[in-house]
Amino acid sequence: MGTGKSVSSSTFSAGGCDWRIDLYPDGVDENKSAYVSAFLYFVSGTADAAAVVVVPKPKLHQDLTDMLKSGEGADVTFSVGDQLFPAHRCILAARSMVFRAELFGAMKEKDAHCIKIQDMEPAVFEALLHFVYTDSMPDDCDDTDSLPDDCDDNAAVNIVAIQHLLVAADRYGLDRLRLLCEAKLCRDIDVQTAATTLALAEQHQCTRLRGACIGFIASRDVLGAVMETDGFKHLITSCPAIMKEILDKVAAVWSNK
Amino acid sequence: MGTGKSVSSSTFSAGGCDWRIDLYPDGVDENKSAYVSAFLYFVSGTADAAAVVVVPKPKLHQDLTDMLKSGEGADVTFSVGDQLFPAHRCILAARSMVFRAELFGAMKEKDAHCIKIQDMEPAVFEALLHFVYTDSMPDDCDDTDSLPDDCDDNAAVNIVAIQHLLVAADRYGLDRLRLLCEAKLCRDIDVQTAATTLALAEQHQCTRLRGACIGFIASRDVLGAVMETDGFKHLITSCPAIMKEILDKVAAVWSNK
Repeated sequence: MGTGKSVSSSTFSAGGCDWRIDLYPDGVDENKSAYVSAFLYFVSGTADAAAVVVVPKPKLHQDLTDMLKSGEGADVTFSVGDQLFPAHRCILAARSMVFRAELFGAMKEKDAHCIKIQDMEPAVFEALLHFVYTDSMPDDCDDTDSLPDDCDDNAAVNIVAIQHLLVAADRYGLDRLRLLCEAKLCRDIDVQTAATTLALAEQHQCTRLRGACIGFIASRDVLGAVMETDGFKHLITSCPAIMKEILDKVAAVWSNK
Repeated sequence: MGTGKSVSSSTFSAGGCDWRIDLYPDGVDENKSAYVSAFLYFVSGTADAAAVVVVPKPKLHQDLTDMLKSGEGADVTFSVGDQLFPAHRCILAARSMVFRAELFGAMKEKDAHCIKIQDMEPAVFEALLHFVYTDSMPDDCDDTDSLPDDCDDNAAVNIVAIQHLLVAADRYGLDRLRLLCEAKLCRDIDVQTAATTLALAEQHQCTRLRGACIGFIASRDVLGAVMETDGFKHLITSCPAIMKEILDKVAAVWSNK
């Protein structure tokens, strides 16, 4: 209907006040013409201002983040590479079946106050702990979108970090973190990392990520460039059966043209 | 613009697919004419369906609820009335300055494994623990809205429970729980409970709830009935200064007529 043109809802009541929604289907101005904009307007109010009690946002996540950072009340320490991470057994056990078995089960770590983690970078374990305490990825794992286009190196570093985090999530049975990593890798497949991400998806049974990587690699614009990467050369030796699947996909693309 | 009439946004892209929003400002049909309806339509997709990784909802709150219920890893027990509540020191300390001082500070409870709580009903302490672990009120504290109109007795019981929970929240420095209780009491002020809620608001410095109670009591339809309640008789003796404020409000209402 045109940029800057709007339609208004009829007035409706909520919380003792009257409201109206204006919708701009083609954007409120030229700068925002790619976005549907909706505005909620306050029309009139009958409720006494004193009668409204404002409840602040939940802060459980922040409280647990602070607890992780301060280490107060920690009853176990993990030694990862050259770093130590104090943590709280009950939180770890509540969030991961693997930690539960390790910390409250019959394993020898049950009574250990310092547990050594092999084959993991400290930064990866730190990101894993952040997820365990907050249910979200650390901010610095989630900022490839905000990087300028000339920061390909940083973006690649970040994708490698997410790949390692996916491996750690799988190791500790943190299914939601695994899927968060998969979703992130799925959005950020690029020439440099497509082959290594595919190898990872194959090793960790990430069916959808695997399909997305094969679809990406088997496209006219990128196939040649992906095949030049070290990751692809490694893929040929580590997962030779996948070559056939990539070729099947190429053949399917060609037959659709 | 009339029920059943809609406007459509232009098509926009997200997640590799094209979408359109249809808005019905005056409702999609007669049954829903009081509601603004918006529908998101899938227009076309180019992304391979395999390329979408679905991430499930966060479950930190559920994991902590399960931990509280199972009591696994609990390292402290509270004795309240005739009930025992196993809990986790680190969670309590992360969420409440008062628990932190009690459990990790210099107080004598620091090394105690069983802490006796005086002057509190077990059900109130249980609701308090639920909030500490989940940042939300227990469901049964939040269901007055769903009660049929002839369940005034149940609603009153529920309001009394929320009043007690507010006192407990104040005692443990749980500001957000206090405000949740205030907001709930503010929405549910009625003739039977207005005076006791006002006394509570006065004792615990709940300014907005106090103002809402005075506004409710000083209205033509309810003043007489509120004054008949035991709560009002108690209010006169416990907070005599409030009578003047109620009269001020009545005078203000009359002068506006």
